[in-house]
Amino acid sequence: MSNHNQNFSAGLWIFAQSVEKFGSYTRTLSVREQIQAAAQVPGLKGLELIAPTHVSLENVQEVKGWLDDAGLQTVAVNPLVWTAAIWHRGALTSPDPKVRREAVDTAKRAIDIGHVLGSTKMDLWPGEDGFDYQFQADYSKLWQWTAEGVREIAEYDPETRVGIEYKTHEPRMYQLVSNAAKAALLGAELGLPNVGGYLDFGHALLTRENPAEAAALLARHNRLVGVHVNDNYGIGDDDLMVGSIHIWTMLEFLMTLEQVGYNDWITLDIVPRKENAVEACKRSIEALQILQRMMDRIDRPALAQAQSEMDAVAVRRILQQVLG
Amino acid sequence: MSNHNQNFSAGLWIFAQSVEKFGSYTRTLSVREQIQAAAQVPGLKGLELIAPTHVSLENVQEVKGWLDDAGLQTVAVNPLVWTAAIWHRGALTSPDPKVRREAVDTAKRAIDIGHVLGSTKMDLWPGEDGFDYQFQADYSKLWQWTAEGVREIAEYDPETRVGIEYKTHEPRMYQLVSNAAKAALLGAELGLPNVGGYLDFGHALLTRENPAEAAALLARHNRLVGVHVNDNYGIGDDDLMVGSIHIWTMLEFLMTLEQVGYNDWITLDIVPRKENAVEACKRSIEALQILQRMMDRIDRPALAQAQSEMDAVAVRRILQQVLG
Amino acid sequence: MSNHNQNFSAGLWIFAQSVEKFGSYTRTLSVREQIQAAAQVPGLKGLELIAPTHVSLENVQEVKGWLDDAGLQTVAVNPLVWTAAIWHRGALTSPDPKVRREAVDTAKRAIDIGHVLGSTKMDLWPGEDGFDYQFQADYSKLWQWTAEGVREIAEYDPETRVGIEYKTHEPRMYQLVSNAAKAALLGAELGLPNVGGYLDFGHALLTRENPAEAAALLARHNRLVGVHVNDNYGIGDDDLMVGSIHIWTMLEFLMTLEQVGYNDWITLDIVPRKENAVEACKRSIEALQILQRMMDRIDRPALAQAQSEMDAVAVRRILQQVLG
Amino acid sequence: MSNHNQNFSAGLWIFAQSVEKFGSYTRTLSVREQIQAAAQVPGLKGLELIAPTHVSLENVQEVKGWLDDAGLQTVAVNPLVWTAAIWHRGALTSPDPKVRREAVDTAKRAIDIGHVLGSTKMDLWPGEDGFDYQFQADYSKLWQWTAEGVREIAEYDPETRVGIEYKTHEPRMYQLVSNAAKAALLGAELGLPNVGGYLDFGHALLTRENPAEAAALLARHNRLVGVHVNDNYGIGDDDLMVGSIHIWTMLEFLMTLEQVGYNDWITLDIVPRKENAVEACKRSIEALQILQRMMDRIDRPALAQAQSEMDAVAVRRILQQVLG
Repeated sequence: MSNHNQNFSAGLWIFAQSVEKFGSYTRTLSVREQIQAAAQVPGLKGLELIAPTHVSLENVQEVKGWLDDAGLQTVAVNPLVWTAAIWHRGALTSPDPKVRREAVDTAKRAIDIGHVLGSTKMDLWPGEDGFDYQFQADYSKLWQWTAEGVREIAEYDPETRVGIEYKTHEPRMYQLVSNAAKAALLGAELGLPNVGGYLDFGHALLTRENPAEAAALLARHNRLVGVHVNDNYGIGDDDLMVGSIHIWTMLEFLMTLEQVGYNDWITLDIVPRKENAVEACKRSIEALQILQRMMDRIDRPALAQAQSEMDAVAVRRILQQVLG
Repeated sequence: MSNHNQNFSAGLWIFAQSVEKFGSYTRTLSVREQIQAAAQVPGLKGLELIAPTHVSLENVQEVKGWLDDAGLQTVAVNPLVWTAAIWHRGALTSPDPKVRREAVDTAKRAIDIGHVLGSTKMDLWPGEDGFDYQFQADYSKLWQWTAEGVREIAEYDPETRVGIEYKTHEPRMYQLVSNAAKAALLGAELGLPNVGGYLDFGHALLTRENPAEAAALLARHNRLVGVHVNDNYGIGDDDLMVGSIHIWTMLEFLMTLEQVGYNDWITLDIVPRKENAVEACKRSIEALQILQRMMDRIDRPALAQAQSEMDAVAVRRILQQVLG
Repeated sequence: MSNHNQNFSAGLWIFAQSVEKFGSYTRTLSVREQIQAAAQVPGLKGLELIAPTHVSLENVQEVKGWLDDAGLQTVAVNPLVWTAAIWHRGALTSPDPKVRREAVDTAKRAIDIGHVLGSTKMDLWPGEDGFDYQFQADYSKLWQWTAEGVREIAEYDPETRVGIEYKTHEPRMYQLVSNAAKAALLGAELGLPNVGGYLDFGHALLTRENPAEAAALLARHNRLVGVHVNDNYGIGDDDLMVGSIHIWTMLEFLMTLEQVGYNDWITLDIVPRKENAVEACKRSIEALQILQRMMDRIDRPALAQAQSEMDAVAVRRILQQVLG
Repeated sequence: MSNHNQNFSAGLWIFAQSVEKFGSYTRTLSVREQIQAAAQVPGLKGLELIAPTHVSLENVQEVKGWLDDAGLQTVAVNPLVWTAAIWHRGALTSPDPKVRREAVDTAKRAIDIGHVLGSTKMDLWPGEDGFDYQFQADYSKLWQWTAEGVREIAEYDPETRVGIEYKTHEPRMYQLVSNAAKAALLGAELGLPNVGGYLDFGHALLTRENPAEAAALLARHNRLVGVHVNDNYGIGDDDLMVGSIHIWTMLEFLMTLEQVGYNDWITLDIVPRKENAVEACKRSIEALQILQRMMDRIDRPALAQAQSEMDAVAVRRILQQVLG
């Protein structure tokens, strides 16, 4: 029996394509099929959904049925405010007030859907809110509109925690809310306790944060809303299987989550470009479980002692004992 | 006559070595000689000093005389809390409380010295406060100690503005206060109006900030204390001559400083490893003046219009007209 | 009248979507419409085509007619060996010999098409030939298959110059031929004079090459086949409008191309995600022309003298005179 | 008993300072003391020396005695062609022919010293041969001088293998020979079998090479001369303890070294800035030994099968079994 208080979940988007082994994308699965695919991953207990991609106010009862059948809980309902044509020049920060209105309304609907599905958490990824070229944007306005939009969303339901999924770039060359501190600062500016950061492990690497340190920062300000896990090479948002590159970094991240009392969902956000999604998720959860067992083997008093002295040599010895 | 309200200054450390053309470092200049060297740079009106490297409570009257003779004002007095043996495991965040005490006291002395020299600004660079290895540090403690130390420094004299010179890395692999938002967040947490960020153009590039956007963020929170200019290739803190790589990025940065009402010092922070320091500063100020003239030629209403529409093509046309 | 011997061209793929100002992608243009769009860009004299995306042995005469009508020459015909389902596990390096065969045959057909269109140059972008995960590939085999495939393609027609468009990553996490020296080394290993590198300015930045230095390296080995221009922030393959970030870097690149005797096409390879393609190309060519005029104003003897002494201060003075 | 054919060594420079636990640099050790310090590291069998820093033709017999006493072999003798004042504007590529002559002569003396010490390998790090500013250098000349200098060094003794320690930057902003393929290409251009690359694990990461792939490339061309191991975060040449970040990357690297038949020295090149050097080396060798044991546990036939299909999911399963 595990003594770890976190449960594993996944973004439903991972399962969108039915990639057979060494096959190519044959067709896009229906939402019901995607949920059924997710249910095949041992250890997976919950899903993040995108609204309206996966679920809308119209079909929410039907989707709820599928989730119940699959035995999967709803972790978060995330509003689609990227890629689609309407968000061409931004969502929360579009120069067009009608588009900004629609972005906020999309998020409010996600909150309503969440209530039906039993979730009070939102991953808000303002992926189009930023700029591609220098001189293209009035940064003060971008912040002003972001603050106004997030305030309206967060005040719509104080019970729902809104985590900004911060990221440096992609699809925009620069996303406005690009690191953990910006997300926390936005929450502090708004004075709303239900606004914070949604920490994606890979995004933290992209912005030169050490993920564990970013988690500690958000937790210090009571603004750690949710967590995505994956891996990358530090250059692009590769969304590789968990544990494929940064074993120690992920181990420290998981330990820090426990230390700051984050007893909540850990959501896979991987992109299996050329792999079968179910298999890639299995390997990722396997990696997380291996890391949890490594965590259990660490000599905690010795580690605490080493940290209290900033003793890197002792730290390496303690960690390497776990690898044996 | 220029319609720009900023004055150019330099870090006195730039002039530490007497490098002749194509010669190597022959000897370290005395502080007086360094000030005299700085005075040879046309357009340079002020200096940032490091205490106690350049000035102490013991010799402050003497240094003041040298500065007066050279016609140079004091921009900021910055406490030396890096490199020296005592800061081996951190300054504000050393595990040793006596070291933390000494770090705070060093900063207080810098404030006292500033009063004598007529400066009420401090660039506080916690270059050793961070970590090299994962698992080496308790991040919550690092933040707690940083907050405590900065509070004591800032409360020692509410008139002196304390700007944290944020940086991703070097000499530490990870510096705790690594981006503009962290500096602003620290100020917000402390609730002290005289704590903010000291924005180094090159450091902003290292943390994947667009410098103009970082300036706008700090200004939005009334926490833009000071500014360092230089250039780099985006990988290391090269401290190259201003304008040598990022012409547009610097132009946007300078324009944004004006737009947010930063009518204050712009300080050269370059490292002329193989060049004569006076000549490298001349070229840097020449670059800043060229950029100011380019700024004057920009069609501002057209640019504002393009920005209001996020129109990148129009932006490029307007900027390229300035190049002719 | 310009004293520059290079002509400007573009990748036809730039014009695939009809993006109106601030509109979104409405529909994909036909190849004929794309060519007509390209013809609207003043100063654009040629096109690179992808086979079979834009042209095949079946429709090559028809496409030739459209190009003639538009007054546009064919710069290169490039084989489509990426993205499509068949290249899922690599093209030249697929584990499936039938796929490797098809990759080579696709390239041979591109050569045949080139003959009809009057081009003897190929940009070969092995974008799927690499790996995503460590341990996933046998690197020796990847190189062996790459060498075999490129040999067969290059020997198929010794008149056609085959330039490997090297790149660090994307879509693969690691592309095998990732820098200029690897392309040149491959040519040297094969002992074929018509194999070399296709230098994309942005790709050079991604692999930490200085583009001018990469051009000089390829030219030194007589292996500079072709050139793509664009810009990026050094992190991803942004394919921004030319001149939007790296003015000096591009100026040095263009000057170096002339110095090494590259009197050939300079091809735009930009991705106007949110801009009208014709307008984005206009701005890019405008930038190139501005840079050519800056080049004409540079004091060449002084620059040569400064370079002969590695005198960075003199270099900056000479360059800044051009900005005036 | 290990079935691995490589022996572990270290750069003597690691031991230059006597850092006590949590102490600061107290004094620089004598060469004899440094050798004695190295001898305290279990599993360390050899040393790389720098000439004339550690050994010269004058004192070589004396140094040989110290090495014999310590039971340490000489892995390589490396000429000091960086940092010192004379190399201010380059060593092999200095504009001053007298300096270029001295660089070559320094390397020849290192060869002579190597003969006395029983080593026929040289790590040639041209750390000052490159440029800091764009336009500063004539790249063709840099390559020409590099080729001439390396030719003279390599022809001086065909028995001594000369490996260029390639690196992207630092201390120069750009080092000319910046990646593995450039080193191999230089060897191919010279037509000399004893010229190749000295592969530093951390330098490979800096140039966006996957270290195992770089080793395979050099081996393919019979130009893998030597190997340095350490670790970093992908941004700077941190020279951290082995295994502290990139476990899998190092494991793949070590396995690839065996597969390509590199039965030679693996040299630690770490910089224990704040750690005791002997202790940091102990932890690094411990990490290498753990990785060798992990290597022994890998299901090799299954891994070969997975690689033959580019099957990333299977690869992850096989590797994770080793972590258990």
